Amino acid sequence: NIRNLAMEKVATTVMFPCKYVSSGCSVLLLHTEKANHEEACECRPYQCPCPGASCKWQGSLDQVMNHLTMAHKSITTLQGEDIVFLATDINLPGAVDWVMMQSCYNHHFMLVLEKQEKYDGHQQFFAIVQLIGSRKQAESFAYRLELNGHRRRLTWEATPRSIHEGVSSAILKSDCLVFDTSIAQLFADNGNLGINVTISMC
Amino acid sequence: NIRNLAMEKVATTVMFPCKYVSSGCSVLLLHTEKANHEEACECRPYQCPCPGASCKWQGSLDQVMNHLTMAHKSITTLQGEDIVFLATDINLPGAVDWVMMQSCYNHHFMLVLEKQEKYDGHQQFFAIVQLIGSRKQAESFAYRLELNGHRRRLTWEATPRSIHEGVSSAILKSDCLVFDTSIAQLFADNGNLGINVTISMC
Ligand SMILES: [Zn+2]
Ligand SMILES: [Zn+2]
Ligand SMILES: [Zn+2]
Ligand SMILES: [Zn+2]
Repeated sequence: NIRNLAMEKVATTVMFPCKYVSSGCSVLLLHTEKANHEEACECRPYQCPCPGASCKWQGSLDQVMNHLTMAHKSITTLQGEDIVFLATDINLPGAVDWVMMQSCYNHHFMLVLEKQEKYDGHQQFFAIVQLIGSRKQAESFAYRLELNGHRRRLTWEATPRSIHEGVSSAILKSDCLVFDTSIAQLFADNGNLGINVTISMC
Repeated sequence: NIRNLAMEKVATTVMFPCKYVSSGCSVLLLHTEKANHEEACECRPYQCPCPGASCKWQGSLDQVMNHLTMAHKSITTLQGEDIVFLATDINLPGAVDWVMMQSCYNHHFMLVLEKQEKYDGHQQFFAIVQLIGSRKQAESFAYRLELNGHRRRLTWEATPRSIHEGVSSAILKSDCLVFDTSIAQLFADNGNLGINVTISMC
């Protein structure tokens, strides 16, 4: 028998520290639990929440807003629970992101509209809201995205993502408001699409 | 000059009867108006409203329900303004249609869920409601389709189509509730998808 039973025993009983121990996490984990915990670990640094991977910034949650204000000056902010996110020139070709901030309930939310071609020749739009905050904080909110047209309305309601998890995995799973270019045309006015965004506490 | 000015003059001033004159339409039209009118003409026979082109029945509006009852016995009917349209086995491969009837406000509505592959390798679902009635009658109603999941809701509100126009052109334009298989998975339970359907008068 060439299995090393002693080492197997170690792997199933020895506890390892989380890799974010130096950032303040004191959790000890079995080898098999490490990857899952570290992905969700509150001590893992926050990445820049802007869609696309171009900005490499990372830091703590309380530095995120400062980073956005300094490094992403072009992002506009609207105040209030109920605002209109106006995406201009939605017919621009290729992958495009529209981003804006909404402030309410003493929190900041980032609204993202992403146009991409997941399937060959089929452009889709993905709209989603993420909280500048932790997953736990995100759970106390709900958001509603609404496209309003002539005798038509398309609505998506969900829990905001935390910027700690980000929006790309939700977009990949279509766990957001998804619509194609024909629907965009039904609701757009002169190439501009208004999305009503309402944040509520739950 | 080889243009026949006399004939051109005829074409722009002579009035022609609608081709459904024998079904009771007394409208007279310019040559250029004929096609549009005849497509919308209330005297044009109604086709069988079942999705797919397999049934070739056509007749008058007041014969449609009788046709459905006699020739499409497998379609179930639910009574009420607010019902659940349960589509079973949504993971069945290929193009599939789910159909049911809803009766309320002394009218019959046909609910259609269609799964098809408009774009290569990308299956989508299209859900829509059509009134067993004329376009004019359809305008006094609104319908809402709702997918409800864990902390998620997707809603589409619109005017029902009349079976006189049918649903295929709306599906082609995505002028209906559209979602892909990933979204279907978010809301389905064990391969069955419940769609809340609410009809209202407006
Ligand atoms: Zn940790
Ligand atoms: Zn950044
Ligand atoms: Zn006519
Ligand atoms: Zn039929």
